[in-house]
This record gives sequence, C-alpha cells and structure tokens, in this order.
Amino acid sequence: MPVNIPKTDLKRIVIVGAGFGGLKLARELLYSNYQIVLIDKNNYHQFQPLFYQVATAGLEPSAISFPLRKVFQKKSNFYIRVAEVYSVDNDQKILHTSLGTVWYDYLVIATGVNSNFFGNTSIESNAVPMKSVSEAMMLRNRLLQNFEKAVTIADPEQVRPVLNVVVVGGGPTGVEVSGAIAEMKKFVLPKDYPELDFSQMEITLIEASDRLLASMSKQSSAKAIRYLKKLGVKVVTNNLVTAYDGETVWLGDGTQIKSKTLIWAAGIKGDYPNGFSPEITGRGNRLKVDAYNRVESYPDVFAIGDVALMATEKYPNGHPQVAQVAIQQGKNLALNFVAMNQGIRLIPFKYIDRGSMATIGRNRAVVDLPFWSFGGLTAWMIWMFIHLMAIVGVKNRLLIFINWLWNYITYDQSLRLILKVSGGKADKKEPVSV
Amino acid sequence: MPVNIPKTDLKRIVIVGAGFGGLKLARELLYSNYQIVLIDKNNYHQFQPLFYQVATAGLEPSAISFPLRKVFQKKSNFYIRVAEVYSVDNDQKILHTSLGTVWYDYLVIATGVNSNFFGNTSIESNAVPMKSVSEAMMLRNRLLQNFEKAVTIADPEQVRPVLNVVVVGGGPTGVEVSGAIAEMKKFVLPKDYPELDFSQMEITLIEASDRLLASMSKQSSAKAIRYLKKLGVKVVTNNLVTAYDGETVWLGDGTQIKSKTLIWAAGIKGDYPNGFSPEITGRGNRLKVDAYNRVESYPDVFAIGDVALMATEKYPNGHPQVAQVAIQQGKNLALNFVAMNQGIRLIPFKYIDRGSMATIGRNRAVVDLPFWSFGGLTAWMIWMFIHLMAIVGVKNRLLIFINWLWNYITYDQSLRLILKVSGGKADKKEPVSV
Repeated sequence: MPVNIPKTDLKRIVIVGAGFGGLKLARELLYSNYQIVLIDKNNYHQFQPLFYQVATAGLEPSAISFPLRKVFQKKSNFYIRVAEVYSVDNDQKILHTSLGTVWYDYLVIATGVNSNFFGNTSIESNAVPMKSVSEAMMLRNRLLQNFEKAVTIADPEQVRPVLNVVVVGGGPTGVEVSGAIAEMKKFVLPKDYPELDFSQMEITLIEASDRLLASMSKQSSAKAIRYLKKLGVKVVTNNLVTAYDGETVWLGDGTQIKSKTLIWAAGIKGDYPNGFSPEITGRGNRLKVDAYNRVESYPDVFAIGDVALMATEKYPNGHPQVAQVAIQQGKNLALNFVAMNQGIRLIPFKYIDRGSMATIGRNRAVVDLPFWSFGGLTAWMIWMFIHLMAIVGVKNRLLIFINWLWNYITYDQSLRLILKVSGGKADKKEPVSV
Repeated sequence: MPVNIPKTDLKRIVIVGAGFGGLKLARELLYSNYQIVLIDKNNYHQFQPLFYQVATAGLEPSAISFPLRKVFQKKSNFYIRVAEVYSVDNDQKILHTSLGTVWYDYLVIATGVNSNFFGNTSIESNAVPMKSVSEAMMLRNRLLQNFEKAVTIADPEQVRPVLNVVVVGGGPTGVEVSGAIAEMKKFVLPKDYPELDFSQMEITLIEASDRLLASMSKQSSAKAIRYLKKLGVKVVTNNLVTAYDGETVWLGDGTQIKSKTLIWAAGIKGDYPNGFSPEITGRGNRLKVDAYNRVESYPDVFAIGDVALMATEKYPNGHPQVAQVAIQQGKNLALNFVAMNQGIRLIPFKYIDRGSMATIGRNRAVVDLPFWSFGGLTAWMIWMFIHLMAIVGVKNRLLIFINWLWNYITYDQSLRLILKVSGGKADKKEPVSV
C-alpha cells in the first residue's frame, strides 16, 4: 500500500538516510522547487564521531542525536517518514518500506555503512559493534554490567576476563574508545568499585596493519601509539582477530586473550536497500557513482557519502569514508538538483580535504591539516572546538560543553546508568515498529 | 550459591531498594558500626516525581537517575549489589536473589510500590504504566511513534484514535502528565507535524472519585481542574475505566473513548519479595509495621516507605505514600539501628507533614502547606525550586535547570528521540542480566 504523502505538481526527491550527507542535502534543498521526502529508520540524526563518548558514559544519547522533525519544523513540501527501506524497484521508481510503498522521481541513497565482519560469524555473534547510538548504549550497558558481575566473583582468576576489554580496529573509533575506557579505568572505576583490583584489567587494541590511524600522517600514528601506551592501553599491530567465542579472542599469530568484551571497530561495508544489480557494487560494498554522484546505469538514482564509490584520479579507490565527504557531496548534489530543474550544466564533485583528527584521552589529540600535523593539548582543544561546532542544535552544544567541562574538572563520567528501554530491538534489521 | 560479599565482625544490614527511603537509610548508616549491603535491581536511584517529564520529552532519564556507586564512592563496609530479590527466608535469614543467596542480620524492605490494575487483565496488558524511568521512556517512545504513525494515515477518522490520549488517575502523576501532554499539543506538536490537525487530538483525564488530587486541599483540587481545562484537557470525575482493548476505553457509565494510548496512574500496590505470611499484609498490599518500622512478627525485618503500613492515630490507614514519609522513615530507622547497637531506647516514628504540591503546565502549580494553600506562578516557582533541590547530584541539578530554562524560553521539549536500547527488557519481572 502506498504511504500517505500528498502528490503535488512538484517533482519528488526521496532521500534515504539522515546522516551527515542526507541531512545536508535535505537542508540545502529547502525552498527548492521539489517535493522532498526524507526517510530514516530513526526519527533523529546521529552524530557518529561522538558515539564512543556515549559508550563510555561521558555523554547522553540525546546530546548527540537530534530529532529530524525539529530540524525541519514548519517546512512546506517537506515530508519525514520514519521507516526501514527494504528495496528499490527502479523500473517502477518505487521504494518498498516498512510503512508501504513510496514512489520517486529522483532517489538519493545516503544510507552509509554498517559493521563488516568479513563473514566471520563467531565474531559477528559475540562482538559489540558501535555503528549507532543504540549500539553505543548497548556497549555502555555491557561494560557496566561486566563490572557489576565482577564484584560478585570471588576467584581473581575468573574476574580478569570480565574486566578485560579488547578493541579491534586502529582507526579513529578504535583509538578513541580505547583511550576513553583507559581513562575510566584510571579515574572512575577504582572509586566506584573499591572491591575490584583494576591493575588486573587489560585494555588491548588490535590493528591488522602496521600502524594506527592509517588514514592520517605517520607522525600522528606514532603519537597516537605513544598516548595510548601512556594511558596503559596494550597496542598490538600487524595482527588479526581470527575468532571469538565470547570468552577467548584468537589472534592470527596464535595468541589468545581472555576477554568477555570485544569491541568491533575494524571494518565497514556499504549498507543500502536491495534491488541494485551486483555489477555496480565496488570495493567495500559501495555503490559506484559518477562525478555527479549518479549511480552507474541508474539515471534517476544518486548515492552520497560513505555508501558511494566515486573513483577519481586522486582517490582511485573512492573517497575516504568520513563526514566531510558526505557533507560536501550532499551540498554539491543539492546544487545539481537545482541546476537540473533550471536546465543548466551540472557541477562535478570535487573533495576539499580539510584535514582529520582523533582524540586520545584527556588533553591529548592528533590533528592533520593539509600542510601541517601536530598533537598534544592544542590539538585536543581544536578537536573539542570543531566537534562542538559540528553538533546540530544550540542546546545540544551547550549541554555537551557543560558535560565536557564537568567531566574534565571532576575526572568523572557520571552517566553510569544501566538503562534498558524496551519497545523494540536496537537490532539493525528490525524496522521501527511505528 | 552465596553472593560474594566479605564476612566481617560487623552485623550486616541488607537494604532492598534504593528509592527515597532505602537511599536515605543507607546514607545515614555510613560510618555506623554495621556492614551495609544495598540491593537494587537497577544500578541507579530514580527520582520518581519527574518521571512525567521524561515521558513527555522534557528531561533525559539520566537527569533524574543517579548511579548508586557514585553516591557511595570509596565507602568502606558498604556493598552494592545489582540484583532482583526473589524471596526472603526469615528462618534462615537469607535472601534469594538473581545473583545467589545473601544472608543478613537485619533486613530492610524498601521496595516501594508497583502499578495496581486491580486484576483487570485487559487494562494491564494494554495500558502504559509509569512507575520507573524505563516505563517513562517507553511511554515517550509510544507517544512519538503514534504521531509518526498518524502522518501515514490518510483517513482523518482513523487518525483521531492514534492522537488521543487517555490518562487514568487524578493523583499528582495523572494531573502532571496530562498537563504536560496538553502543553506538547499546544506548543510543540503542530510545529513538528504540520501535516496533522491537532485540534482533533483529545486528552482525557479520568478519576474515580469526585475530585482531582484527593490528598490535597479542596482549593487545590478545584484549581487543578481549572488549570487543566484551560490547557484543553477533558476532565472526567466519578467515573471508572472498566476495560481497554488497546483501541477502545470503556468507562463505568457506558461511555466509550477511542484511543491508542491509555496511561495508567490510577492504582498502586506494595511490591515486596515472596516469603512473608499473608496475615501481615494490609490495605494496598503493604507490610504492617510497628512504630519502629519493624514488620509484624518478623523481629529482624523492617519495612519503610510506600511498602510499609504503619497505622497511627492520625493515619489509621497508614501514612500517605509520598517521598517525604519514606525519607523520614529512612532517617528514623538509621537512628534506631545506631540505638540498637548502643543498647539504648528506640525512637518511634512520627511523620512531619511538610505539605504537598503538583504542577500543571507552564507557570501553574498548586501548593498545600500545613496552614496555607495557594496556586499560580508563585506555586509553580516553589514547585521548581523544591524539586531542583531534592535532586541527587549537583550536575543533575544544573542540567535540569538548564533544560527547564531552555524549554521555558523556547516553548519546546527538545528530547523527542524514539530511542531503543536492547540488551534486556524493561519489564519489571525481568532481573537485570548481570
């Protein structure tokens, strides 16, 4: 059955996904001569760079999530539908969703990526991913429950695996979450759990390549390792996790680590609705697009952000999967939609790399600007400023700032609630049951 | 198997429940000559008076929940265990919990109350209760999902029951939640959902007796009705809900109301572990206690707060089930434990009524002091001040204040996220799976 959306004389653009790319595109298309339908399975935009702070009890989910309807309050020709999109029928130009069918004139896939376990089911069923606010909350609950469990165990030998944490993947997420957990271990946990001996707790970060933050400069990689080691994180490079049964982590070189918690930040893959022919899928399960973000052989379908694979001279394997690319593509595509409407020439996408950064605990970060790379306190302050400014909503910005200031002064992440909310599973595959 | 808690020379007091009573008692017993074990099924204390603001997207769960381990950081002879207590074996002086057995010298039942559906299974299985932070979050998700559903329905006749809300119970919770929903309807929802006609949305408050806020003065009751009507709430008194199938609410006089949401704030009953003989249970399923909060015929077991029934001359049917009684009983019992240890005379409990209050939307509240009762803006400001001061934790106080200020200035509750966190059910009967 068709979803109830008024039909008007305007052409309809359906945007699937309200991440950095989809949200930017939708905002830029306000007051354009199109009817816009924005579909997301959540009723909020998620600020992915700070998931790790939600997972480590530093921020509330609501601080980094922003209700979509608030962004687009009182807008005309604009429709939000909270639904899971199952498949695309490009011949009929229809989407099949959990709410029913939605027809489109133009379709934009901005669905991003999901965790990639590379077919390893033992890891997939036992590891904790961190690709959504819900998953970050699950990780928080898991960590806190582990400590609650540890106090009930009398045998120290049995306590250790419950305290241990293994993080897989040395990208920004893996580096930032290991740093944050190491800080909790240092400043918060011994006060909360005087019964436990946290010198027994090991935090291990495992990276398959020879350095952390592979997308950043060599100096930043080296600094990241140094900062993490100072915080007591064990960093293992050139090694893979081959299996995990919920108790033991097996590494490629035969090493075993006993740990009840394995955080998976090692791989991502493009995540889009069914219905596209396999030939247009490239590296990392991304949809191949041309310089205008048009999906190969689907003239009315576009893809932007992490899910899009645009091979250029500088980036033959596609752009880095970061927020900046998604935002810039969203903006460029909006211009092109207006151009299409006016029958003028489209503008090919050109990525302007503004640099990248990662933070490692209190007072320390690494920043790579196009021609300059640095670390330490200045980097950390820049990291904070940039992230604060990028947050949607003045109130969220204010609340995050107060939280950060508070946590900084008190050495305390105070949101240590094991909160469970039923009424649906956080599971990716589960549609929001509206 | 016994739960891992060190055995010392000190006598052990086990407190079950970290609500207002249990928390106060535990705090007052710090540095006493006892070993204290505090058991709660959550790892946090919940501030019940503001549940309705969580349900109506005005506050975050974390703002009104406080991690227990943070309250008791670095305390000695103090043990927190996150567990569900199933039953009490008073002959052997042990508790059976989801973690194993816990022995006690003295036991304090501070488990409060739960929703009472008076055996009406049709209501119980379809209504939304509001007796915990998790339930408040479920209600918030439910309300928001209803609006998301409403926009997908084309037929206005079918939209109305999805928008409608029926609140049962004219006590402070029922009055406050109806007022807050009426404010959302007035200020927030039309902006978020320009597609919907909110003049069609009806909020009905149903009370079985002849007035709202029956525990307060007649003036306050009358003011509450006036304030609610001004906000557009339909107030029905002298009427009962007899059945609810998830679609239709049947009232005692035969009236039917079509509504997808029924909020149950109409009845409570004492909620305590199994193992007590039925004779010691009184009105409202509360445990009969003497003037020292000792449970009848169980010399080593005490009960405080909502779950305790202490018949006095002034309160022959027991004290009102409010936070003040629980807090004062917790404090008195702490003094008596110290007295027992020193072999001196125990102090009988005497309730000092400091008054009661309820708020009804923006700028309006009713306050009953022992010799004075008033309403309006002054009452509302006093309500806010008292509640802010009662909140545990300076940071929570600060964040709530900022939220209130923000919401007041912008006419906007901005936490409208449908957030689901799996890893356990919020269901009361489900133990926290540590």
